[in-house]
Amino acid sequence: MATAKTFNPDIKRIYIEGSDPSIQVPFNKITLTNKETLLVSTVEGPDVNAKELPKLRAPWISKRVDHKTQLELARENIITPEMEFIAIRESFKYGDDMAFSAEMVRQEVAKGHAVIPSNINHAETEPMIIGKKFSVKVNANIGASSVSSGFDEEIGKLRLALKHGADTVMDLSTGIDNIGALREAILRASPVPIGTVPIYETLDRAGGDPAKITWELFRDVITDQARQGVDYFTIHAGLLRELLPHAARRILGIVSRGGSVMASVMMRQNAQNLAYEHFDEIMEICAKYDVALSLGDGLRPGAIADACDKAQYGELEAIGKLALRCRERGVQCFIEGPGHVSLDKVYENQDLEDELCHEAPFYTLGPLVTDIAPGFDHITSAIGATNIAHRGTAMLCYVTPAEHLALPTPEDVKQGLITYKIAAHAADVAKGLPMSRLRDDALSRARNEFRWYDQFALSLDPQHAYSVWRAQMPDDCAHEPSFCSMCGPRFCPIRLNRRLKAEFNVK
Amino acid sequence: MATAKTFNPDIKRIYIEGSDPSIQVPFNKITLTNKETLLVSTVEGPDVNAKELPKLRAPWISKRVDHKTQLELARENIITPEMEFIAIRESFKYGDDMAFSAEMVRQEVAKGHAVIPSNINHAETEPMIIGKKFSVKVNANIGASSVSSGFDEEIGKLRLALKHGADTVMDLSTGIDNIGALREAILRASPVPIGTVPIYETLDRAGGDPAKITWELFRDVITDQARQGVDYFTIHAGLLRELLPHAARRILGIVSRGGSVMASVMMRQNAQNLAYEHFDEIMEICAKYDVALSLGDGLRPGAIADACDKAQYGELEAIGKLALRCRERGVQCFIEGPGHVSLDKVYENQDLEDELCHEAPFYTLGPLVTDIAPGFDHITSAIGATNIAHRGTAMLCYVTPAEHLALPTPEDVKQGLITYKIAAHAADVAKGLPMSRLRDDALSRARNEFRWYDQFALSLDPQHAYSVWRAQMPDDCAHEPSFCSMCGPRFCPIRLNRRLKAEFNVK
Repeated sequence: MATAKTFNPDIKRIYIEGSDPSIQVPFNKITLTNKETLLVSTVEGPDVNAKELPKLRAPWISKRVDHKTQLELARENIITPEMEFIAIRESFKYGDDMAFSAEMVRQEVAKGHAVIPSNINHAETEPMIIGKKFSVKVNANIGASSVSSGFDEEIGKLRLALKHGADTVMDLSTGIDNIGALREAILRASPVPIGTVPIYETLDRAGGDPAKITWELFRDVITDQARQGVDYFTIHAGLLRELLPHAARRILGIVSRGGSVMASVMMRQNAQNLAYEHFDEIMEICAKYDVALSLGDGLRPGAIADACDKAQYGELEAIGKLALRCRERGVQCFIEGPGHVSLDKVYENQDLEDELCHEAPFYTLGPLVTDIAPGFDHITSAIGATNIAHRGTAMLCYVTPAEHLALPTPEDVKQGLITYKIAAHAADVAKGLPMSRLRDDALSRARNEFRWYDQFALSLDPQHAYSVWRAQMPDDCAHEPSFCSMCGPRFCPIRLNRRLKAEFNVK
Repeated sequence: MATAKTFNPDIKRIYIEGSDPSIQVPFNKITLTNKETLLVSTVEGPDVNAKELPKLRAPWISKRVDHKTQLELARENIITPEMEFIAIRESFKYGDDMAFSAEMVRQEVAKGHAVIPSNINHAETEPMIIGKKFSVKVNANIGASSVSSGFDEEIGKLRLALKHGADTVMDLSTGIDNIGALREAILRASPVPIGTVPIYETLDRAGGDPAKITWELFRDVITDQARQGVDYFTIHAGLLRELLPHAARRILGIVSRGGSVMASVMMRQNAQNLAYEHFDEIMEICAKYDVALSLGDGLRPGAIADACDKAQYGELEAIGKLALRCRERGVQCFIEGPGHVSLDKVYENQDLEDELCHEAPFYTLGPLVTDIAPGFDHITSAIGATNIAHRGTAMLCYVTPAEHLALPTPEDVKQGLITYKIAAHAADVAKGLPMSRLRDDALSRARNEFRWYDQFALSLDPQHAYSVWRAQMPDDCAHEPSFCSMCGPRFCPIRLNRRLKAEFNVK
């Protein structure tokens, strides 16, 4: 029998119900050829093609008499439906229904060690959590710029990002006319939290002139975006004016777009960081809608030569103080991190963040462990990302092969996400999350038993794995041949393993 | 002016001469648009298209009255031309002409902490060293199997491997008719050391029947291959019979092809490992031609579930004892390592190897930090590889995207090598090798100064980086535009950096 041209694994959507029928946690159930099944988490949402998703959380939100943040609710010992949803999601992600309780989720949120991005006006989100004790999350950036990419392309990238497992998505669009409409379309179609960098739209509204950016303009942008439903804001409030001389001494001064705008405003206006000056008011807006603050690292190093300097660590210290203020005000927050850092300094970054930012969740961009591989920076950064996540980083911002060169194409989005799902999963395994090795072991058993199609079904990209394998298999060979093109039948070690197990009476 | 369709960086071959005119160490000199230059190591040899390379080392070898190994010579306080060549190669690799002296090379070889694979019958090799104190090396596997790939393809892969920086190449051909002729062609065309796994040809000569493998047959293969000029042999002499029950208890018993053949022979013949039994005789052959022994890990874990078990570590302990015997006999050796190992156990593997194998160089295959990404195992393995190399592993065997699925195509060879050059370089930087950050910093300066073409010239794959960038640049924009498609001109942080440096008087 000839092998098929395409491969369609038996993967079906199922839902696990919580204590209330409105809590329906989605999973994909993979059924293998030997009838074994495995649940894997999915972020694709109830309908990948819908322009507007159902507002899953609307009944939960409307029941709350006064709008409080998840952090405030957690502190009042209230277990929200979001927390219960997350406990189920995290527990079954790796097949252990006892691993995470809703009470444990509440405790981590109450301490500020974990964040549930959940704008009350983005009721379409399926709740997820960002915190060291939970599985490592991956963010995908999308967004148009004035030079390339359009509206439909970005919605296409959102869907592609969801298909490949982005736990949150940031819309980094800049310089386009319909930026509000694009964000609205993304929010309504997204079952995962959406983050933005509001200073981008602020600069656009100021006609591109940093001298014209005022607090009032920035406040209006934040308010508008919060009202639309953005779940977290990157705000570079820790980029204090006094840190700029340190950045000037670097090879690559400032590489953060938002940080660069903030620095421009300070230099043009001869003033302190306006987000820092008005931080209380920003927190008020965030508290009202339960927008989480992603305290941005405007001074993240853009070269390994610039890592761990006074600019970077001075900003981290300032951010740590802001994180405490967020906790006091009941606003959820997490901390953005580098960037470019050589491997020997990766752990130091996580450890210092824990210390200076009081164990608020860390959210890093890589870090890239070398600067010499443009075109392959999904790989240079995944090496750093896996390490820092193993050490405690809660969410990884993906880096695509296009980084430093161009806006990512859809194929780049896919490659970036698969690479970061590898990093996140490898870190989960290294952290020893309960049952996190279940899928690895299922795949290894399939390998040992020549269940080729099960290997593909269990892999991060089944169709791709199948294609690579099939390209070298003769058309007329068995449906599941007990060898492959790598060794041929004579040198196949897997065939020996059957005899080995028989010889020593191992089943 | 429109941007060009292709990109031709100014990269020229130069040679640095040693104390004798016969010592000519090759480098590529990259000249940047601002006239700065940078040397990078090259392994392409004097002629990429030659079927037979000049025998560079022939005069050095013929001058030695009795054929001793580099280890024996080092112990007698003799600095060979190979050692001096290596000192220059390692020093200028990262631009520091004082980093490594020939005497330091000699000392590391004398201690058995470094190996110079240099069969006296492979005089075409440009000497290189494998040792913890030196830059991390990368091996590329090529080789035909009975199911796919032919003669010309393999020579093509050798050239591709050299182009992308393979420091050594292993010919893993099995089950083809002209295996000796293919190896001969590879040896004569290769300026880098060639490794093999002689048990493969032995099985072929035994008609594929492990029961027919005898010591005499194995000895003949080893002798023939040593005489041809193979620089190192993977011999699975530490895979002792008493370890087999431990392997049988694994999910994926034995995944090493050579280990699997050795186990077959032991089981069929009810005998101890013949390479272990005849180790003294194997060392004699190796000593005669200065073949280095790559003591193979036939029990390397093929699943993260199987890592660090009694099979793996029991074999490592046995190998460590063999390494001591090699040192006593004056035979150079290094130690093969895993395989599949979750990130939390990677350091443990290197540390135990140092202890049990007396700091003989470690040569690992990855390790892969998760099993769930067939089709992307160049990435899963590069994560483990960078970590273990940072901890001390001297050479990394590349893994291509085809691993576990098919024989690598030429494109796979390229992808695997670039990925592993990233891992090796990132580890060099993390290890703090003198001047190892030079290329990173040059690229970062080019980034800061909008010298796009210099960024490409300095990158691991210039043409690829250029292509990605150019695909999104308008045809009518400037030759070196001071922005790119990622942020567009308005949001470009790099443009701000000029003002930032001016503001704070930084040049």
